[in-house]
Amino acid sequence: MPLRTALTELLGIEHPIIQGGMQYVGYAEMASAVSNAGGLGIITGLTQPNPEALRAEIRRCRTMTSKPFGVNLTILPALIPADYDSFARIIAEEKVAMVELAAGSPKKYIGMWHAAGVKVLHKAATMRHALKAQEAGVDLIEIVGYEGSIAGGQPGDEVGLWVLLAKATSVLKVPVIAAGASGTGRQLAAALAMGAHGMTMATRFLCTVEAPIDIRIKEYMCKPEVDERSTTIVLGSLSNATRVFKNPVSLQIREIEAEGSVDFSKVAPLAAGARTKTMWQQSGDVQDALWSCGQSVGLISDIPTCAVLISRIVAEAESQLNAGVSRVVQSKL
Amino acid sequence: MPLRTALTELLGIEHPIIQGGMQYVGYAEMASAVSNAGGLGIITGLTQPNPEALRAEIRRCRTMTSKPFGVNLTILPALIPADYDSFARIIAEEKVAMVELAAGSPKKYIGMWHAAGVKVLHKAATMRHALKAQEAGVDLIEIVGYEGSIAGGQPGDEVGLWVLLAKATSVLKVPVIAAGASGTGRQLAAALAMGAHGMTMATRFLCTVEAPIDIRIKEYMCKPEVDERSTTIVLGSLSNATRVFKNPVSLQIREIEAEGSVDFSKVAPLAAGARTKTMWQQSGDVQDALWSCGQSVGLISDIPTCAVLISRIVAEAESQLNAGVSRVVQSKL
Repeated sequence: MPLRTALTELLGIEHPIIQGGMQYVGYAEMASAVSNAGGLGIITGLTQPNPEALRAEIRRCRTMTSKPFGVNLTILPALIPADYDSFARIIAEEKVAMVELAAGSPKKYIGMWHAAGVKVLHKAATMRHALKAQEAGVDLIEIVGYEGSIAGGQPGDEVGLWVLLAKATSVLKVPVIAAGASGTGRQLAAALAMGAHGMTMATRFLCTVEAPIDIRIKEYMCKPEVDERSTTIVLGSLSNATRVFKNPVSLQIREIEAEGSVDFSKVAPLAAGARTKTMWQQSGDVQDALWSCGQSVGLISDIPTCAVLISRIVAEAESQLNAGVSRVVQSKL
Repeated sequence: MPLRTALTELLGIEHPIIQGGMQYVGYAEMASAVSNAGGLGIITGLTQPNPEALRAEIRRCRTMTSKPFGVNLTILPALIPADYDSFARIIAEEKVAMVELAAGSPKKYIGMWHAAGVKVLHKAATMRHALKAQEAGVDLIEIVGYEGSIAGGQPGDEVGLWVLLAKATSVLKVPVIAAGASGTGRQLAAALAMGAHGMTMATRFLCTVEAPIDIRIKEYMCKPEVDERSTTIVLGSLSNATRVFKNPVSLQIREIEAEGSVDFSKVAPLAAGARTKTMWQQSGDVQDALWSCGQSVGLISDIPTCAVLISRIVAEAESQLNAGVSRVVQSKL
């Protein structure tokens, strides 16, 4: 039995599940697999070396699925900023179903995207950013808490999804999506019961048959010793706090950050994207690179296809919602 | 319409809402108000100066309510440990409905409590502690995440309730209660949809008419500038991580901890319980003491009676559960 929400209606998709942006993972293979399974797959824009390569990747994805899919555009402080304007233009020209905008302001591009019929999902880790995005006219707002792989906030006061989602769903008028550290039907049921319209997963999609990464990484993530405590936060001192897998590389970055004034030249070789790309695609050595990972890694113990994963999550969510509502006892009056 | 769960059935209470332990707040006034409103009120054991004073407080509470109530017993490392054995014995002798055991192991006392008909709710901030408590035979397990006023885990990897509750409800056989940073019906609906049997609130109960604390504190907590970012974590360096209100006192403790090897003599005057007690009961100055506070402070904007608060939360939870289940569309086949 399908779940119908503002998300499924707006995008014409079967299930209220979005695959989040995934650096060096969100290629056409990943996005098409999720879309073919009835969710919304997403190509990670900046994983492509340049805007024209993104156009080619979008077109490649169209050969792999006839269903709607999206593109993630994460705008981050960088030594050499990407050509965001051109990436944004390609997204409009190629008329993908949705753009997931993270970290930047939607104001600059929203008119162009809407004119092209592209729905805009804005990712926010604070109420302040969510309210600004609402004002700018985005279609959906994705709320990510401290457990997820973006960890907003100042050290010591990062806000958990349990509070942030409850606040967002009661304050915002735009439909809200729960994001970050999600991987099960119980969480989808909870998100819908809070008043959200769907759930975004990234870490969980790493452990699917179709994820275009080394099989040793997937197998490692399923081990019992990898649990909800297996992540940590880095780069907070550079105003770029990110939740990553806890390994020698991330712990070394934490040590450098703990020393006080951060020497970026010490961090750069550890945090280099090329190193992470090599891990995903060649070495499979999860201990040797910085890689984004939500606490949902503690909820993962198998490697299903995207179709099996999504239908399992939806069935569990339906069962949990039915069990939840059965707690309401009709009055005997 | 009431909500029926394993919690309401086990304790014979009307609503699946527990008032958590609250140092220097959990007196008979608070506990009886919550119990009279149909929830489960709790007397904070160690707020009483000695075991016989706890007995007197329990008896005083019985003059204020005829409904079930409980006692919290938090076992913490302290320079001069409390006489836990005698506190535990009084709880058994007085046959209160439930004990909320936090931080210590249930093994030592569970036989005595069960023999006296006292149900045992064990508070856990990690799956490891929850599994140990289940093995020891507790009746209910309360799961508290990083957002709440106990913040377990190592710095940087504290686990949010969004993940911990989803894991606990799928792994544990003992009924689970969601605790920490909860204050709204949306959260109760989410907890029940995840598979939990109720919700514990502490910070939210501070802002009730009956809470025996200075009115200036309640009014301050309702101000718009007090939000979900208004808390921070202290005492992690002493293996006693606690979420507290962010003010000059807690920020000073954080600074001392950041210096490295912690000199307890510098922290002690700032963290002294007497100072907190003075704030609650006399000065009303929220900036001048260390006080436990969950991120749910960002969800509080009024000071209702306990009865109004609880019935509002239950009505909202029912409405959200109904809205959630309405997302499930019957198949057209």
